[in-house]
Amino acid sequence: MYEQILTLLESKQYTALKELLSKQNEADLAAVFEELPEEKLPLVYRLLPKELAAEVFVNMESDTQEFLIRAFSDRELREVLDELYVDDAVDIIEEMPATVVKRILMHTDPEMRKSINEILQYPEDSAGSLMTTEFVDLKKYMTVEDAFTRIRRTGVDKETIYIGYVTDENRKLLGIVSVKDLLLCEQNVQLSEIMDTNIISTSTLEDKEIVAEKFRKYDLLALPVVDRENRLVGIITIDDAMDVLQDENTEDIEKMAAITPTDKPYLRMSVAETWKKRFPWLLLLMVSATFTGKIIQHFENALQAYVILTSFIPMLMDTGGNCGGQASVTIIRGLSLGDIEFRDTFRVIWKEFRVALLCGVTLAVANFVKLMLIDHVSLTVAGVVCVTMILTIILAKFIGCTLPILAKSLHFDPAVMASPFITTIVDALSLLIYFRVASIMLGI
Amino acid sequence: MYEQILTLLESKQYTALKELLSKQNEADLAAVFEELPEEKLPLVYRLLPKELAAEVFVNMESDTQEFLIRAFSDRELREVLDELYVDDAVDIIEEMPATVVKRILMHTDPEMRKSINEILQYPEDSAGSLMTTEFVDLKKYMTVEDAFTRIRRTGVDKETIYIGYVTDENRKLLGIVSVKDLLLCEQNVQLSEIMDTNIISTSTLEDKEIVAEKFRKYDLLALPVVDRENRLVGIITIDDAMDVLQDENTEDIEKMAAITPTDKPYLRMSVAETWKKRFPWLLLLMVSATFTGKIIQHFENALQAYVILTSFIPMLMDTGGNCGGQASVTIIRGLSLGDIEFRDTFRVIWKEFRVALLCGVTLAVANFVKLMLIDHVSLTVAGVVCVTMILTIILAKFIGCTLPILAKSLHFDPAVMASPFITTIVDALSLLIYFRVASIMLGI
Repeated sequence: MYEQILTLLESKQYTALKELLSKQNEADLAAVFEELPEEKLPLVYRLLPKELAAEVFVNMESDTQEFLIRAFSDRELREVLDELYVDDAVDIIEEMPATVVKRILMHTDPEMRKSINEILQYPEDSAGSLMTTEFVDLKKYMTVEDAFTRIRRTGVDKETIYIGYVTDENRKLLGIVSVKDLLLCEQNVQLSEIMDTNIISTSTLEDKEIVAEKFRKYDLLALPVVDRENRLVGIITIDDAMDVLQDENTEDIEKMAAITPTDKPYLRMSVAETWKKRFPWLLLLMVSATFTGKIIQHFENALQAYVILTSFIPMLMDTGGNCGGQASVTIIRGLSLGDIEFRDTFRVIWKEFRVALLCGVTLAVANFVKLMLIDHVSLTVAGVVCVTMILTIILAKFIGCTLPILAKSLHFDPAVMASPFITTIVDALSLLIYFRVASIMLGI
Repeated sequence: MYEQILTLLESKQYTALKELLSKQNEADLAAVFEELPEEKLPLVYRLLPKELAAEVFVNMESDTQEFLIRAFSDRELREVLDELYVDDAVDIIEEMPATVVKRILMHTDPEMRKSINEILQYPEDSAGSLMTTEFVDLKKYMTVEDAFTRIRRTGVDKETIYIGYVTDENRKLLGIVSVKDLLLCEQNVQLSEIMDTNIISTSTLEDKEIVAEKFRKYDLLALPVVDRENRLVGIITIDDAMDVLQDENTEDIEKMAAITPTDKPYLRMSVAETWKKRFPWLLLLMVSATFTGKIIQHFENALQAYVILTSFIPMLMDTGGNCGGQASVTIIRGLSLGDIEFRDTFRVIWKEFRVALLCGVTLAVANFVKLMLIDHVSLTVAGVVCVTMILTIILAKFIGCTLPILAKSLHFDPAVMASPFITTIVDALSLLIYFRVASIMLGI
């Protein structure tokens, strides 16, 4: 499609281009806009039908949005803003520099400006910052027919009309009715009779990761957000929850690889930005690895007597690191999916201990065979390596499974306690074990 | 709630218990069932109202489901099955042993059995296996009023009624109408006038990961599944897509940590099962690490002359591994989110090269200062370590960014090319560089 658009654009066939654009999906069009040469953006954008234009705009990356806003006339800006849902407007504003924000707020209607300012007050990762204030609110004395009338009258501007929220005069949330319930019910029944009062809701300050998990656990389409007095202030819709889920996963994965998380796509980050996200962790881990070096220096004499021992250091360290990494990543994921809780700590340790023993013994046996048959080392050296391996694996799995739980109970993000950190710790410990075992078994 | 249920159960207050249970949410109740002692399960389950009982059943872990099915009378089994949606029934059947499957199929009504068998034929990770065959199908000559009549008449059994699918006499998909469109439209308008013909659909054999990404990209509530002749065979709903998204993330994370993925929660796996998922990778990586040992053995003489060099091996290897891991994980994630494509390979390499140079030089400078001021090594040894560091990092980032892209282009899962594998490769290469640099600069 991109080539087609470019061809029409270059041959100035604007009518045909307009026709083509109007038939596309907003997400696909937004992707095309990211590829187009910047100077063509305003021209192509102006060829879009008004409603589609706003939808495409919402789907763009924030730097493209900023570029367009700067190119817009006041009237054009107002037209886009009029079509936006409040939560989308907030998402856009959050990424813009102050001058652009000021210009946006100047051109939104007073009611929307009020809602935007309200949502902007919530912390970045909270349910409040994620919600929209546009929802279908109903009263319990309404009949099904009344409810439909209200939905028909106000529904155009709502992000979802499929869930209606029944509130009292103090805006307290009393119950929920779905359009499915309404459709499958007689017209004259009162909402108080059919509304579901067993409500799953969230508070404005709840962490957005927990919000996303709620959608998944309870199979929700929308989740009401209430303030401290249990008053309904907004709703979160599933499309936003799904984005949060994916963003949080990306964040966790980046943290596990010792990278400071970012929500910018890889190819849009500058080299300096990428460096800034990676360098501090590398430095920290490099400095930590110094201890490992110190341990080797300390046992310099032993190594000079048995140089062969040196050659097994990488294998022992890697195996320890991999074992610890497996345990830590499993536990980190279990914690974030809610499969593992703090109270499971001892079950986890006991299980990892047995898995470690099994892994340790089987790997040691495999290694022993290899050491004897291929490397032809002496029986005692093979013994030293294999005993070290078993002990290192047990220790690595123990550290791997306890550190994430410990981090979580101290309100740190367990994801940081993944392979890179575990590896650094296990490296040092495995060397200590190695040299201790060697000094006992080889008498050095 | 769990304690409350247990108390009522032990004091045999079944009426109160029934009352309490009927007010709970299905997902929460399913979690309670996982905790209850097994012998109490059938009793508590029988206290649930019929419809809620089926919903709770769907939310349980498969071994609990199996236990209950075995405890059910034929009539009870039929009652549960009657309440299930086809896709949920399939999900349950897929986890059951053959005898239980046979019993389930014997007690489903013929139409549902046909649908189940149809869905079971699709490969496990395909869109077909994920879909339900129960959807609202409409005709283009219907009016809005007709559509509502049809939804009201058939909607009870549909998983979603919010999207209607307009098909022709050959079941070809012509367009889509949402209930929102229907509600905001006059009653006598024909569907052909309002249906959206710009349809986003998927084929039965599409990978479910791509299906889930489509939901996120296009903000869908449901996605139609068509066969090769473009006939509508089913739909996938967003709750299933969200589960897929989360499962695929877990799978990727496990693969990145060198674990064979599983969809069983951690605490439900036996020690032997956990071992089986971890051991083969550890063995493979351990054997690969042998090369690293061989390299050290090869340079034994050099090491005996400069034992100090040994003590920097772990730090150099770890830093290389971490750098490679950062690059690989970033690229793996970018590939799976669709941010990076095969055609971006050279952009990626060029970017990683510059990032590597920046990381390498900055880390080398930090390291140089430390080597001179704290470790008091000679200038040439410090030089060897720092030059090795820069070269290793450049190589590590190059390997880290190219291997996942290579894996993907060969139709392997890029997630396997994460830290553990990269580390093993980088370890060996960094040692080769180290000894080469040392032999040049120290003349050994």
